[in-house]
Amino acid sequence: MQYIAYMQITNDQILNMMPPQFGLFGLLFAFMNRLQAAGDSFYEEITCKQWFLLACMNLYSKEAPTANELAETMGCSRQNVKEILNALVKKEILVLKQDDNDKRKQRIYFTSKQKKLAKKYQNKEMDFLKLLYEGISDDEIKNVFQIISRMEKNLTGATGGVTGVAGIQA
Amino acid sequence: MQYIAYMQITNDQILNMMPPQFGLFGLLFAFMNRLQAAGDSFYEEITCKQWFLLACMNLYSKEAPTANELAETMGCSRQNVKEILNALVKKEILVLKQDDNDKRKQRIYFTSKQKKLAKKYQNKEMDFLKLLYEGISDDEIKNVFQIISRMEKNLTGATGGVTGVAGIQA
Repeated sequence: MQYIAYMQITNDQILNMMPPQFGLFGLLFAFMNRLQAAGDSFYEEITCKQWFLLACMNLYSKEAPTANELAETMGCSRQNVKEILNALVKKEILVLKQDDNDKRKQRIYFTSKQKKLAKKYQNKEMDFLKLLYEGISDDEIKNVFQIISRMEKNLTGATGGVTGVAGIQA
Repeated sequence: MQYIAYMQITNDQILNMMPPQFGLFGLLFAFMNRLQAAGDSFYEEITCKQWFLLACMNLYSKEAPTANELAETMGCSRQNVKEILNALVKKEILVLKQDDNDKRKQRIYFTSKQKKLAKKYQNKEMDFLKLLYEGISDDEIKNVFQIISRMEKNLTGATGGVTGVAGIQA
């Protein structure tokens, strides 16, 4: 019989070891690392980061977004979004088209390949979310949403929108 | 006067647009992207991912960890942890030493440079956490911790420890 050398530290012990502010901060990093690893092996065709860009596209129901608008929504740098965009355009999942009114702008559109992908993974995604939230009520989820949302507002010091700043320029 | 072309979507609207399960999933990605961007410009000497590895080192009070143990704690692949480790060893913030009992194992230790770094950023880190959690009570933070912790258990299907599996081998 051989003991594995390291001790298990449970999440409950974490809360006894340090202030909850520290504990939650670390937990979020570890949890998101695990989620991203799971996401990267979930889709055959795309990475987890590419998936998130596609998910954010769905927030733009009125008008297809530009790369800058997506960067705001995703909380990424423009450079970062452009790299992810290029990969998805190369895979023919997205396409860029010149804006009708402003020729300097390009707007981003889904292709028919994206629609096939979305359909292919629809059930698998629902099963995954069911597993992830098992035993957690809608109210609990909304509560976490509201608190993380307040942390996001504190972090950006902005108006708290997922898409970030919007307004009127003089 | 010129309107910025895109509409602001607030986090509250998100909850009216989709089930909270979807909303929280997306919010976590966007929030962590923003947090990582903030972290990358927070420290002069290290990236946000390097910071997280150093933070996880503090969980091992009894015995310095191995790379595999850190990978479990951080929720990263071993390959990923080794890249981060190599960068920190190169910067002389960490050092690897052979295990006393098992020569095939290397354990990871802080250097005096790490201790200087920790001291340098101590106040700045406290100020950042104060800002991030402004207006959010300890109970609210603990509540979020517990729910994310349950999501992590659901995700790993494991025993829920931050450091993952531990046990006895036959």
